[in-house]
Amino acid sequence: MSKLIVQKYGGTSVGSVERIQEVANRVIRYRNRGDSVVVVLSAMSGETNKLVELINAINPKGSAREKDVILSTGEQVTIGLLSLALEAKGCPARSYTGTQARVMTDNAHCKARISKIEGDKLTKDLDAGRVVVVAGFQGVDNEGNITTLGRGGSDTTAVALAVALKADECQIYTDVDGVYTTDPRMVPEATHIPKLALEEMLEMASQGSKVLQIRAVEFAYKYNMPIRVLSSFDDNDDGKSTLVTREEDIMEEVLVRGVAFNKDEAQLTITGVPDQPGVAYKILGPISDANIEVDMIVQNIGIDGATDFTFTIHRNDYDEAKKILCETGEKLGAKNCDGDDKIAKISIIGGGMRSHAGVASLMFESLANEGINIRMISTSEIKVSVVIDEKYLELAVRSLHDVFDLGDCS
Amino acid sequence: MSKLIVQKYGGTSVGSVERIQEVANRVIRYRNRGDSVVVVLSAMSGETNKLVELINAINPKGSAREKDVILSTGEQVTIGLLSLALEAKGCPARSYTGTQARVMTDNAHCKARISKIEGDKLTKDLDAGRVVVVAGFQGVDNEGNITTLGRGGSDTTAVALAVALKADECQIYTDVDGVYTTDPRMVPEATHIPKLALEEMLEMASQGSKVLQIRAVEFAYKYNMPIRVLSSFDDNDDGKSTLVTREEDIMEEVLVRGVAFNKDEAQLTITGVPDQPGVAYKILGPISDANIEVDMIVQNIGIDGATDFTFTIHRNDYDEAKKILCETGEKLGAKNCDGDDKIAKISIIGGGMRSHAGVASLMFESLANEGINIRMISTSEIKVSVVIDEKYLELAVRSLHDVFDLGDCS
Repeated sequence: MSKLIVQKYGGTSVGSVERIQEVANRVIRYRNRGDSVVVVLSAMSGETNKLVELINAINPKGSAREKDVILSTGEQVTIGLLSLALEAKGCPARSYTGTQARVMTDNAHCKARISKIEGDKLTKDLDAGRVVVVAGFQGVDNEGNITTLGRGGSDTTAVALAVALKADECQIYTDVDGVYTTDPRMVPEATHIPKLALEEMLEMASQGSKVLQIRAVEFAYKYNMPIRVLSSFDDNDDGKSTLVTREEDIMEEVLVRGVAFNKDEAQLTITGVPDQPGVAYKILGPISDANIEVDMIVQNIGIDGATDFTFTIHRNDYDEAKKILCETGEKLGAKNCDGDDKIAKISIIGGGMRSHAGVASLMFESLANEGINIRMISTSEIKVSVVIDEKYLELAVRSLHDVFDLGDCS
Repeated sequence: MSKLIVQKYGGTSVGSVERIQEVANRVIRYRNRGDSVVVVLSAMSGETNKLVELINAINPKGSAREKDVILSTGEQVTIGLLSLALEAKGCPARSYTGTQARVMTDNAHCKARISKIEGDKLTKDLDAGRVVVVAGFQGVDNEGNITTLGRGGSDTTAVALAVALKADECQIYTDVDGVYTTDPRMVPEATHIPKLALEEMLEMASQGSKVLQIRAVEFAYKYNMPIRVLSSFDDNDDGKSTLVTREEDIMEEVLVRGVAFNKDEAQLTITGVPDQPGVAYKILGPISDANIEVDMIVQNIGIDGATDFTFTIHRNDYDEAKKILCETGEKLGAKNCDGDDKIAKISIIGGGMRSHAGVASLMFESLANEGINIRMISTSEIKVSVVIDEKYLELAVRSLHDVFDLGDCS
């Protein structure tokens, strides 16, 4: 049965003329078996960095609107090149920038969020037998300004397009062949996961398993879009992959699916804040207004009418967030405002946790045995996350991977 | 009195971070004296070539639509960078791609022509005190496809914007400080022309005096927009320049204003074509349908019911045009079809020719004295052009420059 497939290729997958030719070959293989294909591309690897260097040489603190105009050119080059490569191989294709594909976003430049995609034009092209090649990472606001989606935006474009066009599957091509129980570069015993639930992937992604970006997984979760993670370096289209799908499609529910970690975060703490209703909003509102995303949030029970408040943010936002927080702290009469950007976050994730007690305590015990101090804890139904000193990260990951028996049997 | 000025900068003028800073400084100097400024930019020098190399490595014969998507990124980078540079110096600015500036064109990709510019948004920005920075060389067709204007397109964008926004002057910044009686690299005695008529400039430009592109001058001529040619390497805003303006504004009308030449052309000849009404259209129609511009056209008087037909085109189009012409020739029963791409065209130009006989014959005599054979002749009210063997070009230019006394007195 013929399918509509959205394929997304990252920067290394389109990093040279040869790699672009290989992408074209794969697209044509899918078409030859009767599928319709929409391709979403990132910029050639290295190109975005070159543009960032130019920006930084001129005005690193300049307006995000202008930065987006510059940064969005990277994908515009690759979509044209892939379309030409497809044409050269006899396959009709048409490229679309974010503006042309009507990837509508809000106006939060550099971190824009997709509000909708008007896919009529693309559908017409697909019906006419063309491959549609769309620039990832970018969109357009209601005023016609070019926006970029920020970190991992191309994954999000791919999933959003897949949803808008009612695709059968969204394939994300990277330099790895799927999701592992943890990062194989850190733990060689890490094992490949052929299938996992979107909920689990959501937690894996948000914890920094670099394979898929959290926003893309959120999108897929919300609209029930199956994602398949594959390697663009594998010519075998039926090779290893990880299918991320609805939970009910997963037969076996395991206790702990994997160990995720993240070194890109920083921690901010404000202490001695008068404990009044609305204090959380007063503290986090200004951070959110600056478009800084907050990850973990922990508030201690108030003592003597005062409370302590700790949260984590992306490390890049550390200086700005700290400045905002300390200003807020002064206004609120807080006792102290401090932070640390040398932290790491580790999470264990698994749909089976719901029905099994003791998973969290086994985690805490295992870290204690290694003499690792836990600075923050946060839990969800299928995840337990802790923040520790960055220097203990590798030790902690190895230890947890071992304790929860995630290693390869072989 | 405050003016609205459109300034266009070519690739070498924005070729590095330092050069972009200098452009920003000049824009701010104009603003500081009360002028409103619209800036039109080319891509950084070398960038377009890099993109062309990528295209040629993948599919040199690919669709022009996709090439335009790729090629238009060059200017998109520079408009963002200049806007950031202006911001860094405290000057509010906003960039516009061709699509955003609503530079509407036909859909002749790679050679599109501007149909209109909807300048409302830009005017609002200017009224709000912003510098408006527009990507040259590019536009958008009615379907939202990105188009490029082809050779010299940025000059055309600048003049078209100046007309649409009712600017007082369109300044074209290049690496020379204006128009000379001929190319100073070939004839060191060439003298600077401070002011000349649009009609004369039109002939100079069309003959290959590389300073201004013919389409831009045509636009300026049609809408009476004064153009000033200046050097972006001259920090003195009141330094040397050439003002190209309405003929009535020019006091003194000289006999011959300058000698222009062009080595970018090729000649095609078809002989023994049955001389029937409509034969010129039958021959040139297919050439024009392929979007190839024809320059000089000469048709001999028919002998024995047959006629010969010679015309010139851009050298890049030589192979394609020859193929088309010879196919047409076969259909029409022509005797022969041939061409030569080792030719050069030389023209003498001057508003005073109208009222003075003998200018053309002085030209022919001078060439004959040097033993140079003339292959084609074409004349207009203020111009005489001849086609000669390319190898005689330099000798011919020097000789004519001398004969018409165009050299510097000093």
